Amino acid sequence: MPMPYELYYWPTVQGRGEFIRLVLEEAQAPYLDIARLPAPRGGTQVLMKVLAGKDGPPHFASPVLKSDKLLISQTPCILSYIGPRHGLAPKGEPGRLHALQLQLTLADLVAEVHDSHHPIASGLTYEDQRPEARRRAAHLVKDRLPKFLGYFEQLLAQDGEHLVGRSLSYVDLSAFQVMSGLLYAFPRAMAHLAPQIPRLLSLRERIANRPRIQAYLESERRLPFNQEGIFRHYPELDVIDREAP
Amino acid sequence: MPMPYELYYWPTVQGRGEFIRLVLEEAQAPYLDIARLPAPRGGTQVLMKVLAGKDGPPHFASPVLKSDKLLISQTPCILSYIGPRHGLAPKGEPGRLHALQLQLTLADLVAEVHDSHHPIASGLTYEDQRPEARRRAAHLVKDRLPKFLGYFEQLLAQDGEHLVGRSLSYVDLSAFQVMSGLLYAFPRAMAHLAPQIPRLLSLRERIANRPRIQAYLESERRLPFNQEGIFRHYPELDVIDREAP
Repeated sequence: MPMPYELYYWPTVQGRGEFIRLVLEEAQAPYLDIARLPAPRGGTQVLMKVLAGKDGPPHFASPVLKSDKLLISQTPCILSYIGPRHGLAPKGEPGRLHALQLQLTLADLVAEVHDSHHPIASGLTYEDQRPEARRRAAHLVKDRLPKFLGYFEQLLAQDGEHLVGRSLSYVDLSAFQVMSGLLYAFPRAMAHLAPQIPRLLSLRERIANRPRIQAYLESERRLPFNQEGIFRHYPELDVIDREAP
Repeated sequence: MPMPYELYYWPTVQGRGEFIRLVLEEAQAPYLDIARLPAPRGGTQVLMKVLAGKDGPPHFASPVLKSDKLLISQTPCILSYIGPRHGLAPKGEPGRLHALQLQLTLADLVAEVHDSHHPIASGLTYEDQRPEARRRAAHLVKDRLPKFLGYFEQLLAQDGEHLVGRSLSYVDLSAFQVMSGLLYAFPRAMAHLAPQIPRLLSLRERIANRPRIQAYLESERRLPFNQEGIFRHYPELDVIDREAP
């Protein structure tokens, strides 16, 4: 029996850790969500030690995944490792590279969503940068979301069901998460965009209805969206019908 | 003879394309910098066609690298492909993953540097977002640069010469580029930080003095830093000694 994976990530938010959780859940791969376990085995102090390089080189940020003795960080890097191990990535090198490329593009979108409520500094609160957030979010909604989502919609037009290759991959699972987060954070803007992205909305539904994902979403392992994560719902940022300032 | 690589990137800036150029130059791998060639073979129209998916799936953004029939985009993804082909990446899987992890962290830093002069929208000019840029840049200089560079300095303390593995890799070449860009954009802040990052400064010097890199830097193939790229020198953003607003 292989050792269960160990996921090191903040215990109260979906955040970037969620992209890893979704793959492990769909793969039915045993894993421990370490920082959510009680101390001394778990807790954020254990996470901090792993980041600092307790068992190897230091990591700049979480999530970190431990697979046997290997410690890996950076979400797209982790996914490029676990995807192929569990049949959730294309088999050949061109497909693997394409999957990583798309994941990096999703990661760019996620970073832009984060910065829509933190355009000045991640070390400040939202309230400390609200005017700038209103301005940045208006551009996100008006220009960036249509551009990013339009790109992925165009890719789905080719295969119809999957973003890369001809079967489910970690990229599809990540797109599910991004779409779910956007629907939570920007319900008005997403309703406005919906007619332009039918295939992405359908992909999100299909994945939500996969038995393992559905069971996960209904479990306590799935943290709810909240106002500390990447996807936050601030009604004043969910604007349409006005010119970006 | 293999076909020369074809690099598709904006013709007037170093930008993210520079990370690819540095690897190809160090590897002495034949390549064509397509958008810098005269039309109809080159020019930005050819770049736009490749982005739109002329020879395969569309790409969200440049750089795009063509290797025989394979078209790859997203800088860290391209590097994870060409690094191993030219002996500029660790040999085993753990080292390859570590290299990709570090490259993604450098990419995060590059994105934060870009956003220090474009904190609201990449579609606006710098002048349209100057007050916000002053605020974001102050946090970059005060908090983020010390954190990112301190992380890489700590890694160099382990091997002394290389960021990953025991020989030169694409990560070292990318760190050279990031350090060069920061020294151009933030000379005062970097002088202030210098005592804390001697190993990174030394790495930059060593790589600048490698014969192939030196020849490249002195050639016309190396575009100069300028005020349209990622690393821009705005004196009002290069601040120290004041509290981040």
